[in-house]
Amino acid sequence: MSLFTRVVRIRLAALLLASSPAIASPANADGAADDATPHAPTTAEVLANSNDAEWRQPDPAHTLYVELESGRVVIELAPAFAPGHVANIQALARAGFYDQAMVTRSQENYVVQWGLPEEAGTGHRGDARDAIDAEFDRAADGLDFTALEDGDVYADQVGWSGGFPAARDTTRGRAWLAHCYAAVGAGRGNAADSSDGGQLYVVIGHSPRHLDRNITTVGRVIHGMEHLSVLPRGTGPLGFYEHPDQRIALRRARLASEVPEAERTALEILRTDSDSFAALVQARRHRREEWFIDPVGRVELCNVPVPVRPIDG
Amino acid sequence: MSLFTRVVRIRLAALLLASSPAIASPANADGAADDATPHAPTTAEVLANSNDAEWRQPDPAHTLYVELESGRVVIELAPAFAPGHVANIQALARAGFYDQAMVTRSQENYVVQWGLPEEAGTGHRGDARDAIDAEFDRAADGLDFTALEDGDVYADQVGWSGGFPAARDTTRGRAWLAHCYAAVGAGRGNAADSSDGGQLYVVIGHSPRHLDRNITTVGRVIHGMEHLSVLPRGTGPLGFYEHPDQRIALRRARLASEVPEAERTALEILRTDSDSFAALVQARRHRREEWFIDPVGRVELCNVPVPVRPIDG
Repeated sequence: MSLFTRVVRIRLAALLLASSPAIASPANADGAADDATPHAPTTAEVLANSNDAEWRQPDPAHTLYVELESGRVVIELAPAFAPGHVANIQALARAGFYDQAMVTRSQENYVVQWGLPEEAGTGHRGDARDAIDAEFDRAADGLDFTALEDGDVYADQVGWSGGFPAARDTTRGRAWLAHCYAAVGAGRGNAADSSDGGQLYVVIGHSPRHLDRNITTVGRVIHGMEHLSVLPRGTGPLGFYEHPDQRIALRRARLASEVPEAERTALEILRTDSDSFAALVQARRHRREEWFIDPVGRVELCNVPVPVRPIDG
Repeated sequence: MSLFTRVVRIRLAALLLASSPAIASPANADGAADDATPHAPTTAEVLANSNDAEWRQPDPAHTLYVELESGRVVIELAPAFAPGHVANIQALARAGFYDQAMVTRSQENYVVQWGLPEEAGTGHRGDARDAIDAEFDRAADGLDFTALEDGDVYADQVGWSGGFPAARDTTRGRAWLAHCYAAVGAGRGNAADSSDGGQLYVVIGHSPRHLDRNITTVGRVIHGMEHLSVLPRGTGPLGFYEHPDQRIALRRARLASEVPEAERTALEILRTDSDSFAALVQARRHRREEWFIDPVGRVELCNVPVPVRPIDG
């Protein structure tokens, strides 16, 4: 093999798992009819063709900035699902509680978690409450819900609500946030009501959907996941750091609404009830990028990332 | 809140997501009957009760050691699913090909990938072939298969074969390895047969099952995932490192069979066709640990990690 061939090979390899503009295969590997049309858009084309009204800016009062040494993590909170916890997180952030917090846990293929080190005592709690009821699920009534038709192992129905991956029990009329990658939840002890938002965890591995309805999910990371997912794994039980000096400080954590506008991270999120989002789900279901041999024909909830983009200017 | 209360709270928080010995709830949250009995074992109890004959040692000739600065990554290869690729990986390893390889890509919530940097040319290839047929799936006949009954979004049937998470198309009689967390595959360009095992990737995020049957999966990481999952994310397209000096060298990569016995990592894996593995699946489906409020009652393929343990002495 010549060096040239090797270079070509490397260039091809660079396309591994790529989402390049593409043609559709005529049928999927099951021999079932593929409903893709030759001109159906790819994910990249859907995003390029979306219009500005289909994007929303997260509410600054419900956006938490966590500043690590390596950069900012942006969390969108979900008051529609966890109003008590979100109110407490707001109070704790305003009081400077999280400025004393440290990442104490990084468990491989599971979660990172932060909270106050023992020496900080109760910390600065401001108006935060010491006890909140569990918010594992809520009434499905009154929630918008964009359903995904591909089924799910864990729930009757899955889809998106207010921009968050979510699930419903249609018989019991309940809804909850799904533990997809980047979900943020409130750590608790064995008692259902033992979380107050002072301990937060973020999913960094395969989506642990068995946590759904077992813990209060408070939102999701919309920017900066790469600052959390690469933290060294803890070697103690459950991925806790064994020595206090292994903990990673949160330099500061504030609500976006408390940060001068010039210092905010300007982001917008594709509305999950928009036509472009529906087209994106279809593009993720039927892969039309040239790289794909089998267009798949199915998609699972947590394999549809909700698009987030910076706002120019 | 007193300091004492805070300390208690932190101790409780340490239990977050724990798998502690437990009692079963009488019914799951759907109100459906729970088939758990009061004495059904938890995951920890299943492992403690397993017998030695239920564990197997991976074949050293089909085990690849990848040595990073931070430690050893152990990959079990799957010749039953990708005989051509596994033979080529063995030839490349024996020739010292991977000793020149570098991690060139680390894409958030997706994969890390290594291969030869351009300046290495074709590298030391020994008896390795330059071209191999794609091995995206194989005949289901002749394969052992332990089915999971909980369904799947992507395949007719999922379960385990030879210790690997796998899937089947029962109509067409085909089987393939599933892209769960820690799956290892052979990078390719747009042509189906453009992989040769010289570029390998490892799943480090939510399981990208849409890659199933689109690329040749060659095995899975059974030890040392934490050395790969924390690598800094690349900032170029597809998570490639933008500057050559960001790449991370594989110091050495050898088959376990080529390594003196005293330097091997002695591991054993719970047989996926054993009674204890069946009990473990049941324990992962019906969560009996005290922490769980809702015992869940369902489990998805990639949320059943196949247990691996060190061999004493």
